[in-house]
Amino acid sequence: MSKKILLLHGPNLNLLGMREPGIYGAMTLERINALAAAHVHQYKVELRAEQSNHEGALIDILHVARNWADGVVFNPGAYTHTSVALRDAISAVALPVVEVHLSNVHAREEFRHRSLLAPVCVGQIAGFGWRSYMLGLDALMGHLGLLPEPPL
Amino acid sequence: MSKKILLLHGPNLNLLGMREPGIYGAMTLERINALAAAHVHQYKVELRAEQSNHEGALIDILHVARNWADGVVFNPGAYTHTSVALRDAISAVALPVVEVHLSNVHAREEFRHRSLLAPVCVGQIAGFGWRSYMLGLDALMGHLGLLPEPPL
Amino acid sequence: MSKKILLLHGPNLNLLGMREPGIYGAMTLERINALAAAHVHQYKVELRAEQSNHEGALIDILHVARNWADGVVFNPGAYTHTSVALRDAISAVALPVVEVHLSNVHAREEFRHRSLLAPVCVGQIAGFGWRSYMLGLDALMGHLGLLPEPPL
Amino acid sequence: MSKKILLLHGPNLNLLGMREPGIYGAMTLERINALAAAHVHQYKVELRAEQSNHEGALIDILHVARNWADGVVFNPGAYTHTSVALRDAISAVALPVVEVHLSNVHAREEFRHRSLLAPVCVGQIAGFGWRSYMLGLDALMGHLGLLPEPPL
Amino acid sequence: MSKKILLLHGPNLNLLGMREPGIYGAMTLERINALAAAHVHQYKVELRAEQSNHEGALIDILHVARNWADGVVFNPGAYTHTSVALRDAISAVALPVVEVHLSNVHAREEFRHRSLLAPVCVGQIAGFGWRSYMLGLDALMGHLGLLPEPPL
Amino acid sequence: MSKKILLLHGPNLNLLGMREPGIYGAMTLERINALAAAHVHQYKVELRAEQSNHEGALIDILHVARNWADGVVFNPGAYTHTSVALRDAISAVALPVVEVHLSNVHAREEFRHRSLLAPVCVGQIAGFGWRSYMLGLDALMGHLGLLPEPPL
Amino acid sequence: MSKKILLLHGPNLNLLGMREPGIYGAMTLERINALAAAHVHQYKVELRAEQSNHEGALIDILHVARNWADGVVFNPGAYTHTSVALRDAISAVALPVVEVHLSNVHAREEFRHRSLLAPVCVGQIAGFGWRSYMLGLDALMGHLGLLPEPPL
Amino acid sequence: MSKKILLLHGPNLNLLGMREPGIYGAMTLERINALAAAHVHQYKVELRAEQSNHEGALIDILHVARNWADGVVFNPGAYTHTSVALRDAISAVALPVVEVHLSNVHAREEFRHRSLLAPVCVGQIAGFGWRSYMLGLDALMGHLGLLPEPPL
Amino acid sequence: MSKKILLLHGPNLNLLGMREPGIYGAMTLERINALAAAHVHQYKVELRAEQSNHEGALIDILHVARNWADGVVFNPGAYTHTSVALRDAISAVALPVVEVHLSNVHAREEFRHRSLLAPVCVGQIAGFGWRSYMLGLDALMGHLGLLPEPPL
Amino acid sequence: MSKKILLLHGPNLNLLGMREPGIYGAMTLERINALAAAHVHQYKVELRAEQSNHEGALIDILHVARNWADGVVFNPGAYTHTSVALRDAISAVALPVVEVHLSNVHAREEFRHRSLLAPVCVGQIAGFGWRSYMLGLDALMGHLGLLPEPPL
Amino acid sequence: MSKKILLLHGPNLNLLGMREPGIYGAMTLERINALAAAHVHQYKVELRAEQSNHEGALIDILHVARNWADGVVFNPGAYTHTSVALRDAISAVALPVVEVHLSNVHAREEFRHRSLLAPVCVGQIAGFGWRSYMLGLDALMGHLGLLPEPPL
Amino acid sequence: MSKKILLLHGPNLNLLGMREPGIYGAMTLERINALAAAHVHQYKVELRAEQSNHEGALIDILHVARNWADGVVFNPGAYTHTSVALRDAISAVALPVVEVHLSNVHAREEFRHRSLLAPVCVGQIAGFGWRSYMLGLDALMGHLGLLPEPPL
Repeated sequence: MSKKILLLHGPNLNLLGMREPGIYGAMTLERINALAAAHVHQYKVELRAEQSNHEGALIDILHVARNWADGVVFNPGAYTHTSVALRDAISAVALPVVEVHLSNVHAREEFRHRSLLAPVCVGQIAGFGWRSYMLGLDALMGHLGLLPEPPL
Repeated sequence: MSKKILLLHGPNLNLLGMREPGIYGAMTLERINALAAAHVHQYKVELRAEQSNHEGALIDILHVARNWADGVVFNPGAYTHTSVALRDAISAVALPVVEVHLSNVHAREEFRHRSLLAPVCVGQIAGFGWRSYMLGLDALMGHLGLLPEPPL
Repeated sequence: MSKKILLLHGPNLNLLGMREPGIYGAMTLERINALAAAHVHQYKVELRAEQSNHEGALIDILHVARNWADGVVFNPGAYTHTSVALRDAISAVALPVVEVHLSNVHAREEFRHRSLLAPVCVGQIAGFGWRSYMLGLDALMGHLGLLPEPPL
Repeated sequence: MSKKILLLHGPNLNLLGMREPGIYGAMTLERINALAAAHVHQYKVELRAEQSNHEGALIDILHVARNWADGVVFNPGAYTHTSVALRDAISAVALPVVEVHLSNVHAREEFRHRSLLAPVCVGQIAGFGWRSYMLGLDALMGHLGLLPEPPL
Repeated sequence: MSKKILLLHGPNLNLLGMREPGIYGAMTLERINALAAAHVHQYKVELRAEQSNHEGALIDILHVARNWADGVVFNPGAYTHTSVALRDAISAVALPVVEVHLSNVHAREEFRHRSLLAPVCVGQIAGFGWRSYMLGLDALMGHLGLLPEPPL
Repeated sequence: MSKKILLLHGPNLNLLGMREPGIYGAMTLERINALAAAHVHQYKVELRAEQSNHEGALIDILHVARNWADGVVFNPGAYTHTSVALRDAISAVALPVVEVHLSNVHAREEFRHRSLLAPVCVGQIAGFGWRSYMLGLDALMGHLGLLPEPPL
Repeated sequence: MSKKILLLHGPNLNLLGMREPGIYGAMTLERINALAAAHVHQYKVELRAEQSNHEGALIDILHVARNWADGVVFNPGAYTHTSVALRDAISAVALPVVEVHLSNVHAREEFRHRSLLAPVCVGQIAGFGWRSYMLGLDALMGHLGLLPEPPL
Repeated sequence: MSKKILLLHGPNLNLLGMREPGIYGAMTLERINALAAAHVHQYKVELRAEQSNHEGALIDILHVARNWADGVVFNPGAYTHTSVALRDAISAVALPVVEVHLSNVHAREEFRHRSLLAPVCVGQIAGFGWRSYMLGLDALMGHLGLLPEPPL
Repeated sequence: MSKKILLLHGPNLNLLGMREPGIYGAMTLERINALAAAHVHQYKVELRAEQSNHEGALIDILHVARNWADGVVFNPGAYTHTSVALRDAISAVALPVVEVHLSNVHAREEFRHRSLLAPVCVGQIAGFGWRSYMLGLDALMGHLGLLPEPPL
Repeated sequence: MSKKILLLHGPNLNLLGMREPGIYGAMTLERINALAAAHVHQYKVELRAEQSNHEGALIDILHVARNWADGVVFNPGAYTHTSVALRDAISAVALPVVEVHLSNVHAREEFRHRSLLAPVCVGQIAGFGWRSYMLGLDALMGHLGLLPEPPL
Repeated sequence: MSKKILLLHGPNLNLLGMREPGIYGAMTLERINALAAAHVHQYKVELRAEQSNHEGALIDILHVARNWADGVVFNPGAYTHTSVALRDAISAVALPVVEVHLSNVHAREEFRHRSLLAPVCVGQIAGFGWRSYMLGLDALMGHLGLLPEPPL
Repeated sequence: MSKKILLLHGPNLNLLGMREPGIYGAMTLERINALAAAHVHQYKVELRAEQSNHEGALIDILHVARNWADGVVFNPGAYTHTSVALRDAISAVALPVVEVHLSNVHAREEFRHRSLLAPVCVGQIAGFGWRSYMLGLDALMGHLGLLPEPPL
């Protein structure tokens, strides 16, 4: 049976491609979602993408995902650094979440170095532009056992 | 012409598979190197893997790589959090470096949350066990233009 | 004339009973609301319960409560530690608010020890599971003069 | 051609005039908006005022303003001190924003001294009650070249 | 068989009713003890109250309670913020302890916001004057299973 | 009867127009003083402008202003961040003081984010170049009741 | 009617004259008490001196002093830097307290620079050896109006 | 032969009696100087008083005092907390200096708790209004051996 | 002539063997004292053991030891981290003190990593259960010259 | 069968006896090694001593010890305070390690108070010169069950 | 054409040779100025030396130097650590400034380790007594191209 | 007899001239060594230059220098900020060491402002490119008495 993945985008990511391309790249969110769907298609994974600028809406979406998704690739944007509520939501839904960032947050302002979410995620990927999403999907699919596991 | 990548492993990683498998997994370093070589083979990338427990030796290896490598996938282990000298080495050699970690360093002790190296790397990947290396290679190859680039 | 109390629940509390029962207990929010209504019934207190995952919605609810409620028992969840806006809302509506927590927040992560809201609340109760709400209602009713006052 | 300005009010400002008049003054938000419209009328500036208690809604409003406004006078209220997401929204929309505060935030609690938004705004005005808004509009209009520029 | 509770008061609480009534209320400690005894009488709980200004004496009392009490309601006063020794005593005697405070310690000086004891207590109640004790007793009796437990 | 305002400039402002025009603008202090005098002329306000690089001289000037001025618009320059003595001088003379800055101090080095003076001033205006002074004069005149007050 | 002063000595001061004379001087506590009694005799002040190494005992002594003393000269020794309980005791007894130290605490280890007690005392005198006590008595007698007050 | 003492007053103290009498008292500096001169007259001590708002001038005065004075009673006002240069001046002139404050600096804002000067002074006296000066003179005269020394 | 050693135990150590054996071991204090006496017997050392939960009593015991003991092996328990008074007592009595801990305090909570006493002790031994005492006695006897000194 | 212990010395310890004898004592490392070998001889323990100034070499030695040693007595010198890599090596080899120091590190510079290694060691011994090694060997042999265990 | 250098001395340096020779050396400022003049004579550099204890005067001198000097060797003394105004003055005059110190400031009190000025200077030289000035002059002359430049 | 100086270069300095010339200059290390040798030749000083990227190797080199060198000019590169072991090595060898840096470390990242080595060096020189070495040699030769000493 096929697996289902939520691709979740946080605040300001709807402006992708239109906003500070020097930092975030020139590709739109729509295009990234299409690339992501194509990327996982070969593994029989179904992808649903959502975006919101509202911390509460992102929590609601995660709560609902609890009932249908097998895992989440999440770019929490600025909420990465400020939202305990999203951290608790991730703990609450008990789904594997991979945190991704377009930019290398560790190379930017001091307050972007700390992730409140990473400690409750499987792992974190940051700095590779739109490819961060593809790498995040691969990481999640690997975690879910959807990729071939080499013998030890 | 084919590209060349240095796969560099920092302190204690020689014990991989023999050491704290709950944190670092059960796969040996030798096996990871083999998987990595296989992983990049299809992209005509040549891989050279090295490991050292010596901060100075890692610097030396990076300096040499300046003359032959096109990029580096680097798991700096504990030196991630303490070595300004490795940071300067990365700046000095001016190669693209992708920082990878087996464990989710952001979920461990406070002093493992800070990376002195990440600000001078392309990006960081942490938390996916041996797959962190494969993701890191993909990230670097994408950065080097070895993977197909989708139209905008 | 009877008094009216708002029982307000913050983010992720809609999942109560379904989420991390080791920390938050096995009772659902619906059940807690029913117990709370029963608890205050004998004091002729009317209870209205609301929950939201949205910081802004919680502010809106507090603003509206200004026009009908005599006091609030509030479990702000994760917003306890991050929301200056909710703090200002409590100051703005000038209603007595009792802050309650299911878990003993002082025994958890460092960032859960600080409450931005407690300084503008009547007091704080934490650590007694669903009973925290009943204790909070008693505390508020005492504050409102609804419980018999012993002679000095 | 006339210019357009967004006058944006953050959390709890809907209660203005009804809330802690000792700190925030006795004038309602509606009245301030009317005064502001009158203030800019002579410069052929069109003003649209909006308020929300929702961080996400404020981001949405800024995103939309990107398509119609020439600048923003923004009182972010409590989100001043906690919202990286609003900071990113201001950077993303690339409009000139003037941050205003009714009260002198620098004379209040320690946590109100830091503004996460000011570094991406043109400037900050704080402490002059409803006049802060008029000064903010003047500052923005000056920035936009709508006020007569004296010869050097 | 009936349960036994220690009601323990820390430094300066012997002056209650005589000391800063604006902060601590006008009721004497003797009166609070009598109210507390009356409060638990219906649950067949026996209450013994003790007070000391000596950190060491409070430790001694806790050690003795280990042999007779089923739980403790403890207002540690100023030692809340400074005594690692009392924290260790609570851990050592392995009795359930509920920490109570007359005033809302979270709304006072910064150094009163941290409790060294709360992490080893069941929970904390603060800000409700003499009622904090009654709420603390209810909380402890609930914890001990002396109050009726509603069906889930 | 007409009002009198002191326009006070702190260290290095005598070099204005000659120094780092990218940060501070190209207008000289003399020109700003002339613009300021013209700006307040219509309100029958008399302006006296002074500048000093000496912390002690600035204190002396404020002390003297106590005997003739109705208010002060003060750009304390670098002393903003280091001078407790100027803070005490402002408290001592008990005149309303509006703090102004040419540059957006909140967007510069960390040590420029803290103002030791703002807590004893009416308010602060920063980031609008020479217009900061005009805005500061308007703010002070509004505070002094020299501008028409709209009906509530 | 004559006034009564408590001269209170904290921990380790019983060893005075026998302990580290380079820091604390060569005079015994007994001798200081005698000198102090002689010093206040001319002002018809009665002096009672007490010493304890027990924080709790010092609190007890302050509580009792509430019923007989008009003021306290207190050398709290090491408890100066660690005792919130003594601070609360001083607040509770509402007597004027002058804090004195033999050594210049501000010139010693960092942790001796902070006094938890000074904020609730009339003032602090430190660094003058046994004379600190005499100065403290003068300061307290001045505060109590026992010394001639010069005309303004 | 008689001794000579410099009575040195720092910034804003020229306004004494005219400024914030609630904090600093109602007595003028002139009056304090006269009282001080009278106070030391009996001990054949000559007193010279000086005041300046200029950090540099205070340093100059201390340098000159090196050639005529036997000691200094110094109220450094706000420079207490910010001036390393005055600290160095005190070290350089190698005169005994007693630091005095009218108000209890330890009970005021956090930044007034630290004295940069106290570590190089004989001691510190704070909180006793104009009497702080008289106590400071006594402390200095005791240090200089001008007061009768009791037998051990 | 034989030497005399004080074996001093701080708060909660009277419960040894009865309290948290996972951290502190299963041996009682009485048994440890007996083992210690036996351990030093061969070196003609006389041992006196004392325990108290009272900081003040521990100070008193140290003061008395000044008159009879040649050195101290001290497990200060929780007072290690909070007691400046005990630190001063150790300095005051001028006896060599060896600080010992049953558990490895450096591996426990952050606040147990700092010892206020260690800087005035000869050295510190932590983490070896009841053997920490025997090692401490050996260390002290070595320091006192009771053990054979090897040639250099 | 006999046990084997690694006696490991960190940076600069090769200069022992030749370097700062006031801090580190006058005995050479060679002599200490000989004394240590003699010390454990009676317990049929074989000792191998190694020293290196290279962090990486110390890691290598620990890795090798994993295959032959039963425990380690380790004086990590300056690496105590800076090496996460050595900490990880100790965790990785899973041997019991006793940390020893010649000097009382807790009485020296602030940065020597923190040990990065102690949390993964059995315990720590500091301050007893060359005897610290003998005590460390005793501690390790006790931990390994080589010393007679007294009945409880 | 010859170059001109300002040799600027900050607070307390007028006492050189008379003040704490253990720290600052025994040579007077006059002598140093003479040596400096002799030192640069061979390079046809004209030297003007100035000293002031006044922060404001030092700023004035730097402002004037803007019109005649090619560079500055500056010993800012204590203002190094506290003066943002001098930092701004250096930026404002846009002359190359070499910061020099007689003593090794990095080996003294913690607050002397930070230089507010160094970030806007060419470089810093500290610890070589009067020779620091000669080295500073060499450094500045090198920077100005007055010394022979070796071929690469 | 001639003196001997060790010119020691730390990590990454072997890449000099090839690495980030904007920060470190365009001259190679070999060239600097040659210039340095020429520079000291006139003073009959023999120079030996060494470089290593290994912290341990630098320590070894310093240890050896103890037997042949009269002083050291040391550019510790990144180890300046992280190596307590090198600090101890400098203390241990008891040679005069002058710390030099090519770049102005005080104007770079915050973590480069602190030198762990400077407190045990004679002094520090930073910011003058390859000339820093020549200045360092002059400073050391002055310290060693190899340069003519002017009369006081």
